Amino acid sequence: MTENPFGHHISKQFDTELEDMRNRVLTMGGLVEQQIAQALQALIQGDSALAEQVIERDREVNTLEVAIDEGCTQILARRQPAAGDLRLVVAVIKTITDLERIGDQAEKVARMGLRLAEQERPKTQLMEIQHLGERVQRMLHHTLDAFARLDPEAAFEVTQEDEKIDYLYEGILRQVVTFMMEDPRAIRRSLDVIWAVRALERIGDHAKNICEYVIYLVKGKDVRHIGPEQVKQAVLGER
Amino acid sequence: MTENPFGHHISKQFDTELEDMRNRVLTMGGLVEQQIAQALQALIQGDSALAEQVIERDREVNTLEVAIDEGCTQILARRQPAAGDLRLVVAVIKTITDLERIGDQAEKVARMGLRLAEQERPKTQLMEIQHLGERVQRMLHHTLDAFARLDPEAAFEVTQEDEKIDYLYEGILRQVVTFMMEDPRAIRRSLDVIWAVRALERIGDHAKNICEYVIYLVKGKDVRHIGPEQVKQAVLGER
Repeated sequence: MTENPFGHHISKQFDTELEDMRNRVLTMGGLVEQQIAQALQALIQGDSALAEQVIERDREVNTLEVAIDEGCTQILARRQPAAGDLRLVVAVIKTITDLERIGDQAEKVARMGLRLAEQERPKTQLMEIQHLGERVQRMLHHTLDAFARLDPEAAFEVTQEDEKIDYLYEGILRQVVTFMMEDPRAIRRSLDVIWAVRALERIGDHAKNICEYVIYLVKGKDVRHIGPEQVKQAVLGER
Repeated sequence: MTENPFGHHISKQFDTELEDMRNRVLTMGGLVEQQIAQALQALIQGDSALAEQVIERDREVNTLEVAIDEGCTQILARRQPAAGDLRLVVAVIKTITDLERIGDQAEKVARMGLRLAEQERPKTQLMEIQHLGERVQRMLHHTLDAFARLDPEAAFEVTQEDEKIDYLYEGILRQVVTFMMEDPRAIRRSLDVIWAVRALERIGDHAKNICEYVIYLVKGKDVRHIGPEQVKQAVLGER
């Protein structure tokens, strides 16, 4: 674990504001985690009431995004942060955008759960979807941990998980396509399954983005759009 | 057209920096527009060489994003902008994230173009895809115009276009599903068509996001996650 490079200011009030901002991001992250867990449960168990609840609660995610964003702009205007503090605020502005979009994906999974609950559900892929969903949840949880501890090494480890998620996703996709070809009457239903697993896969991409912001904010290096070896070097290189 | 509320600073150098930042966003926007146009052409005409070129050039889009992002953080650190200038920088940071993701979608369209070029292409939906693609291009062009002119009213008009794009997208989706049911051998190919039209539809969503940032930066009001009537009021209310 990397030592927290922030939070040592002459102004105690500024420390509190930055700490508060980070805590709100984690609150938003916790809510989004819960949204995914419940959306997945609604999808797997065909629980329409739970699906409706997830769709309804997406508003709370949106409200948090707007509030944290506003707080960040206020900190930029009033505190004029420099160096690490500035990177923290910029990273938060980007992180909450990805968290909000993860929330949208959870809502999509819930919507597909709702549609599938009305149909004869394709029992064959449920176990695989559950498995993919659990991996995605774990990846997001590790992402939020890395953010909470401002740990770029942990963040780098998490980015590696995205590949496994893509692999699981591709596997389910192939199965569903085979299933569709065998039974064309199942095409509409199968497409709903495809939208749900694609939403789960997209969550992995957003989690990866957040990990890249964590590396940026601690290391000061932008590691987007570069290969894993270069990211590793950026994270571990200074030892 | 709203008068430019920015660009009147004691420091001429700061004016130049902000102007330069805006111009770079428009350059990135122009590149992304070209990527979409060529990806669409590659898809419609089955032009693999052009598709490869689009995939290759996505790197340039990514490089521009990282460079503009770095420039924004430098402006925040050195100039400590306030009020409208601060909102401009924050809006640019968000805008380039969406532009980069539009670039990713263009790359996806090109990849599907590449895959479809190798197969017997589904001629039936080509006209509809062309039509959808042209609307999406027009929407992005209007978005970049609204950004260039810092015109919130134009930005609001553009957000309305997203609905028409969603409508066209849903129509194509229904056609493709019918096509799949009639000819299950066409399922894989049809899925590639679905991925391509979905990527085009997603570009509309990102363009809408950018329009919301334009409204925020000029009007100082966050209009995400609210209904069109409320957005309209936020844009026109102060008259």
